[in-house]
Amino acid sequence: MFKTDIEIAQGAKMEPIVKIAEKIGLSEDDIELYGKYKCKIGLDVLKNAENKQDGKLVLVTAINPTAAGEGKSTVTVGLGQAMWKENKKAVIALREPSLGPVFGIKGGAAGGGYAQVVPMEDINLHFTGDMHAITSTNNLLAAAIDNHIHQGNVLGIDSRKIIFKRVMDMNDRALRHIVVGLGGKPNGFVREDGFMITVASEIMAILCLSTSLSDLKERMGNILVAHNYEGNPVYAKDLGVQGAMALLMKDAIKPNLVQTLENTPAIIHGGPFANIAHGCNSIIATKMALKLGDVAVTEAGFGADLGAEKFFDIKCRYGGLKPDCVVLVATVRALKNHGGVKKEDLGAENLEALSKGIANLEKQIENIKKFNVPVVVAINKFIADSEAELKYIEDFCKERNVKVSLSEVWEKGGEGGRDLARKVLQTMEEEKSNFSVLYDEKDSIKDKISTIAKEIYGAAGVSFTGAAQKQIKEIESFNLDKLPICVAKTQYSLSDNPSLLGRPEGFEITVQEVRVSNGAGFIVVQTGSIMTMPGLPKAPAANKMDILESGEIVGLF
Amino acid sequence: MFKTDIEIAQGAKMEPIVKIAEKIGLSEDDIELYGKYKCKIGLDVLKNAENKQDGKLVLVTAINPTAAGEGKSTVTVGLGQAMWKENKKAVIALREPSLGPVFGIKGGAAGGGYAQVVPMEDINLHFTGDMHAITSTNNLLAAAIDNHIHQGNVLGIDSRKIIFKRVMDMNDRALRHIVVGLGGKPNGFVREDGFMITVASEIMAILCLSTSLSDLKERMGNILVAHNYEGNPVYAKDLGVQGAMALLMKDAIKPNLVQTLENTPAIIHGGPFANIAHGCNSIIATKMALKLGDVAVTEAGFGADLGAEKFFDIKCRYGGLKPDCVVLVATVRALKNHGGVKKEDLGAENLEALSKGIANLEKQIENIKKFNVPVVVAINKFIADSEAELKYIEDFCKERNVKVSLSEVWEKGGEGGRDLARKVLQTMEEEKSNFSVLYDEKDSIKDKISTIAKEIYGAAGVSFTGAAQKQIKEIESFNLDKLPICVAKTQYSLSDNPSLLGRPEGFEITVQEVRVSNGAGFIVVQTGSIMTMPGLPKAPAANKMDILESGEIVGLF
Repeated sequence: MFKTDIEIAQGAKMEPIVKIAEKIGLSEDDIELYGKYKCKIGLDVLKNAENKQDGKLVLVTAINPTAAGEGKSTVTVGLGQAMWKENKKAVIALREPSLGPVFGIKGGAAGGGYAQVVPMEDINLHFTGDMHAITSTNNLLAAAIDNHIHQGNVLGIDSRKIIFKRVMDMNDRALRHIVVGLGGKPNGFVREDGFMITVASEIMAILCLSTSLSDLKERMGNILVAHNYEGNPVYAKDLGVQGAMALLMKDAIKPNLVQTLENTPAIIHGGPFANIAHGCNSIIATKMALKLGDVAVTEAGFGADLGAEKFFDIKCRYGGLKPDCVVLVATVRALKNHGGVKKEDLGAENLEALSKGIANLEKQIENIKKFNVPVVVAINKFIADSEAELKYIEDFCKERNVKVSLSEVWEKGGEGGRDLARKVLQTMEEEKSNFSVLYDEKDSIKDKISTIAKEIYGAAGVSFTGAAQKQIKEIESFNLDKLPICVAKTQYSLSDNPSLLGRPEGFEITVQEVRVSNGAGFIVVQTGSIMTMPGLPKAPAANKMDILESGEIVGLF
Repeated sequence: MFKTDIEIAQGAKMEPIVKIAEKIGLSEDDIELYGKYKCKIGLDVLKNAENKQDGKLVLVTAINPTAAGEGKSTVTVGLGQAMWKENKKAVIALREPSLGPVFGIKGGAAGGGYAQVVPMEDINLHFTGDMHAITSTNNLLAAAIDNHIHQGNVLGIDSRKIIFKRVMDMNDRALRHIVVGLGGKPNGFVREDGFMITVASEIMAILCLSTSLSDLKERMGNILVAHNYEGNPVYAKDLGVQGAMALLMKDAIKPNLVQTLENTPAIIHGGPFANIAHGCNSIIATKMALKLGDVAVTEAGFGADLGAEKFFDIKCRYGGLKPDCVVLVATVRALKNHGGVKKEDLGAENLEALSKGIANLEKQIENIKKFNVPVVVAINKFIADSEAELKYIEDFCKERNVKVSLSEVWEKGGEGGRDLARKVLQTMEEEKSNFSVLYDEKDSIKDKISTIAKEIYGAAGVSFTGAAQKQIKEIESFNLDKLPICVAKTQYSLSDNPSLLGRPEGFEITVQEVRVSNGAGFIVVQTGSIMTMPGLPKAPAANKMDILESGEIVGLF
């Protein structure tokens, strides 16, 4: 019998976080404790290490995800653990989970099996308060907008054209579309509004793309919050609250340090949506991991077409980061699913489906190579995988001169990832990364979108709705168009149609909506409607959760 | 020139909180650090000290407040500091400030002058996350209500009769009265709703009245959230989320330890509204202060007619607390204001007005004596107070056999409170407290209200609106009437009319609304409409705030 994730996590022998910090050269003055097993790392650590050489940067990404599950976070954590077994000081950099959705379908998550970060109950609940700080910061700005209108509206904000929304870290569908300001004059002007979940806040994207507190403040001031009656942009800084917003974020900007089940240091910081935002942990966290470790292992949301592309074109562009190697996670099951096998039949060997579905892996490998970064394929092993299937993938990669490794970190922890770690290290020795971004951010919006769609998704072309065309013109007229692109697209397909699995060809991408996240610094391109406020299911995970007087936690995972 | 509060606070020589904890017998295992100067105290500390004798309990309260300011928190902090100079281990227990209102008119607050708690910027911003935990817990329950209705409404909740509201820790008038669930079927059913500020949440009152995690969970389960179509009560436990709610509160239930400018231990925990709730820090915090100190110094919101009455009749009743002494704070200025002097004329000596206004002090002294607790009057000294005025108050108290002391803690810190400390200690030696509550909670709602109104406020009678009468009948029919009363009334007068200063007589109290906070365990009696969601002013304090790259904070106070 396998143990459950929570059983494994609760059996972990955690070291005091002070000891973990010590392992990567951090003294007690460099950190602020949050209990015994969590701390924040002061930003001075980055400043003081300015002249220190960076470690190597490894990005873990994946093929297009399927309902079968790929285990990208698990591989990321396991690879970090394995590096230490290979005598490399690795520091893992991960995204922070959001509290609200924990009560919905999924419960908590922080890797899996013997490749998890701990203390998982804290990481999944309030952690060190970053999400709450983002919520407060977002809602201060939102309150300032309505207050400005109520108090005389000197800026002439058009209440029909307010873009910036309130947020809450909770799955609460009733707040998706609301009317505020009812009840007469003391309560302000009536208008339509809506809440998003906290991770969808532009403040979150900004936190993750800022390189300092001043940069954070400036970006927050640049948020496009509304239009005035003349149709011109109104920015957060026009309301004069960016200083107070930065004050609210003074601790949230500091990365959090925890550990894995094998006491590997893991920095967990920031977790923006991977559709309307770029889906990576903070630049500051990744930079710290690079300064503190020989190797920094990080990940990006969704598959490589979205996650890795945004990691390269948005995060690396703004952070001046140069990735040295990409680990591309695939599973036999997911590739068979891409080859047309239904979820319930994935247990059976099916080389024919595998040979079809592997085109998805092939395309993602090609994509990574377009950024001139070496790639290693990691096959995340499941028990039902047959030898023949595994060998098929290995041969496929070898034919393309791509190293491939069988990852067994879920079952065996770092020990199960040593081969992968060695291959990654060997690749970084042998193959130099010549990382470059895919497009020039000064290109026109349409050109940038077209480049991504054709080069990365393999689309035949891009079409724009009338609304999108109008929005592009408006963004250009405001001179806000010289920013990288952040595509919001289904994660399940290279195309914008979730049912086109494998490596679809000849399809068109349809751009429905284009808007600017001017503070974060990217243009969001939506190819469909994106849900920014989830709802609770009929039987919410919350209903199974409990804590006993002894402190024992029940039902969180 | 006097230094500002923030200048004094920033010049404080803080000791590491580990050292402060040591002073009151707490080891590193008893606490959880939140940075170097804040920690939480584990609940085991209470369990392990079960057989240890309690220290003495001192409540600091005041005359009816005026626009002139009384400085109750300042005296509380200063008295705690002074006790240490008198070789008594004092532990201060205070309410937690709420983040949202900091951005409105007042900025932050944590005592004043040389009697402050520090680090004030942290205490006033996110502190250790208690407010955020309450917000999340409240909003999980709120989401569960709408989700239950959306998913089939097995309980038959009448969406026109939902009592439980969402909260946000922000002054945001636009959220006072809203319509939720718009946008069609996926977003649930449309209904009227509104947000309150977090401190107004019943969860906050529950936190402050709970004696353990199980008690907290049970009380949260007992929240009356709505009525069903038959008009019967629906409780939080009917929705099955009280376990998840308790899980969210697992750290918030632990009291926070900080220090004063003179390194006196101060436990800061919980801060419910003083009108629709009882306005005191948590029972757990006060109990800890009693176990850890020779003397516990605590305070209650507003004047003694509201604050002390609720402290005695609600908090002491539920916590089994027996106060040993009350310090009643008054100022010359405030008493002159009660005697009819306008705010702008308070600087000039006016013995005639003082002789009229002192009736307010007289009545509050009488009120404390009705609970059979000894009282000491503390005159919080202001520079413009004349010798003759101070002497007048002293003589007035001496004639009534009440000890009186001039407090100069704002100017001199603990040193300025030594006389007060000595008089409090002497009183507790000489006069035994025979504390008793004012009424039996098993009395009828009307009788309980009438007792408070006549005995404490000095009212001639109580009248009830038709609505209030109906609500009382409903509460009785649900068998929820055997709870203590929590009156929401103006803080400025003994009556329910804020312009009746001094010691009004012959007035009637009008009860407008009666509802039950069944989880907290009291019946809220409103004598007017209570604002549970403030708004931002024309020039919000937020607009002056900033944080520099160096970490220096500007404009918070």
